[in-house]
Amino acid sequence: MLALYFDGQPALKDLPRPAPGDGEVLVRVHLAGICGTDLAVLKGYHNFRGIMGHEFVGEVAGPADSPWLGQRVVGEINIGCETCERCRAGLARHCRQRRVLGLLNHDGAFAPYLTLPAANLHAVPPEVPDVWAVFTEPLAAALRVPELAPVSPAARVLVVGDGSLGLQIAWVLALSGAEIHLAGHHPEHLALARPRGVATFLAADLPAGDYDIVVEASGSPSGLELALTRVRPLGTVVLKSTYTNRYPLEPSALVVPEVRLVGSRCGPFAGALRLLKDGRIDPRPLISRTFPLARGLEALDWARRPGVLKVHLDCREGN
Amino acid sequence: MLALYFDGQPALKDLPRPAPGDGEVLVRVHLAGICGTDLAVLKGYHNFRGIMGHEFVGEVAGPADSPWLGQRVVGEINIGCETCERCRAGLARHCRQRRVLGLLNHDGAFAPYLTLPAANLHAVPPEVPDVWAVFTEPLAAALRVPELAPVSPAARVLVVGDGSLGLQIAWVLALSGAEIHLAGHHPEHLALARPRGVATFLAADLPAGDYDIVVEASGSPSGLELALTRVRPLGTVVLKSTYTNRYPLEPSALVVPEVRLVGSRCGPFAGALRLLKDGRIDPRPLISRTFPLARGLEALDWARRPGVLKVHLDCREGN
Repeated sequence: MLALYFDGQPALKDLPRPAPGDGEVLVRVHLAGICGTDLAVLKGYHNFRGIMGHEFVGEVAGPADSPWLGQRVVGEINIGCETCERCRAGLARHCRQRRVLGLLNHDGAFAPYLTLPAANLHAVPPEVPDVWAVFTEPLAAALRVPELAPVSPAARVLVVGDGSLGLQIAWVLALSGAEIHLAGHHPEHLALARPRGVATFLAADLPAGDYDIVVEASGSPSGLELALTRVRPLGTVVLKSTYTNRYPLEPSALVVPEVRLVGSRCGPFAGALRLLKDGRIDPRPLISRTFPLARGLEALDWARRPGVLKVHLDCREGN
Repeated sequence: MLALYFDGQPALKDLPRPAPGDGEVLVRVHLAGICGTDLAVLKGYHNFRGIMGHEFVGEVAGPADSPWLGQRVVGEINIGCETCERCRAGLARHCRQRRVLGLLNHDGAFAPYLTLPAANLHAVPPEVPDVWAVFTEPLAAALRVPELAPVSPAARVLVVGDGSLGLQIAWVLALSGAEIHLAGHHPEHLALARPRGVATFLAADLPAGDYDIVVEASGSPSGLELALTRVRPLGTVVLKSTYTNRYPLEPSALVVPEVRLVGSRCGPFAGALRLLKDGRIDPRPLISRTFPLARGLEALDWARRPGVLKVHLDCREGN
């Protein structure tokens, strides 16, 4: 099968179809999404080597005796060891020995087939088409924000960054009834948030005033700088982006106002699928372009352009 | 009166006795403590100019019609504007216009007399001698840690830093019944924690294992580095020290393990006085040396020596 492989450089490679191990299924990938973390892989994140990609929707193609056979699925990306204390406590996402689909010691979704433990699968309801379902993983990541920093309807919240993740976070937080502000640099992206009741601002034009919660989803140190400047005393800054640049943190910027800075990673798939099924979140405006997998290198280049939102790969063989 | 003044350099100055303003009292200072933040002032923290010092015990000496007259007192150090939204919400500690005793736009305690709003005062119970009561402010700061990061008896907690504040934090957290580890560099300081049920380690010898909560009280970037290495996923790091060195924070160090980093500053005086009164905390082993105010410069030099715990100034005139 043709797959988008990273080995210091991204390349399309002809590789054998993977064979599912014990407890695993083989998934025929329909669509896969390119995420900011994939672009970080290109810069050396995690020193990953293998087939890239972790956002996908597909159908189970094996083994022949799997109760999942033929089921349309999305899949959680963290694969715990299943035996350590953390896995037994339900924290497989944080298992020290974990593998991560397309990010850490496990081949990913930019291929016609992938393998995953059956325990990682979630069935996609028939009402949710592939082009929505492929957003389950990033939408779940957005839903992790209010899991770690609960948002009350009375709260004032700022989301920094108008990329695909920032927009999904703003949409999700707007469901709470809170006052949500989104700051970014792309008027055409900010426009996607306004119909959901989000007030939007070019970062330079953000009005005065503190926020109870600020979510940094810009992936740049200046976003964290803005967040720390705008959060109220005793407020919360949620860090959403994985990036490798170091930020020169002045401890007194947290100590004096007693601010909390919270890291947030993967989120609840079940909640994401329910919101997609109920039409509470419609992710389609985020799609910039869909490329066939055979043009995967072009797709990566496209995704790296400033201002591009979500790029999808159609991974079905013959596409 | 003779006072220890900072104006780019610390100096003993002969200054007029301050006059209490509206709502303020005049306090005759008995004892004052030198804190790490005072040493930061010497390096330029807050660009403070004025009489130094914020930890004190004394007695109210005016105005003549004050109901506090003659009362032995300690005092909260933050002076809010009393009119802004934060002050009205009980957050005077975080008032934007606040003054802070001996730290920000208000003369401090390294003098025979100071002024403070009567609203800042707490009466010292007769059972608590001056030499204990002068620890109210730092002990309250230690008590802020479990206010912001509640410690259950089942928790494993690491305190990094065996200075005066680190020891008080370890003592306070040990009251919870949790497993408390203290890491430092001074065997003679670590020894002060063991009788309170704290397990102590030289930082290099810290055993393997994660902690639910890590409190960074060392005031050095290497302490924060250790804290971030040792906190468990979804755990909490409490930042306790105000220092001006920047720490090169890698955002993924918080994002991937979903760790929270919480700043913590001033704490509850009433709780501190109760613990001192009940003898639950005996701070006397922390006292390295007491100097008369007239030898204040020598006292500052002494406090800056590596490995010195708390240095007190006897501020009564004639001492």
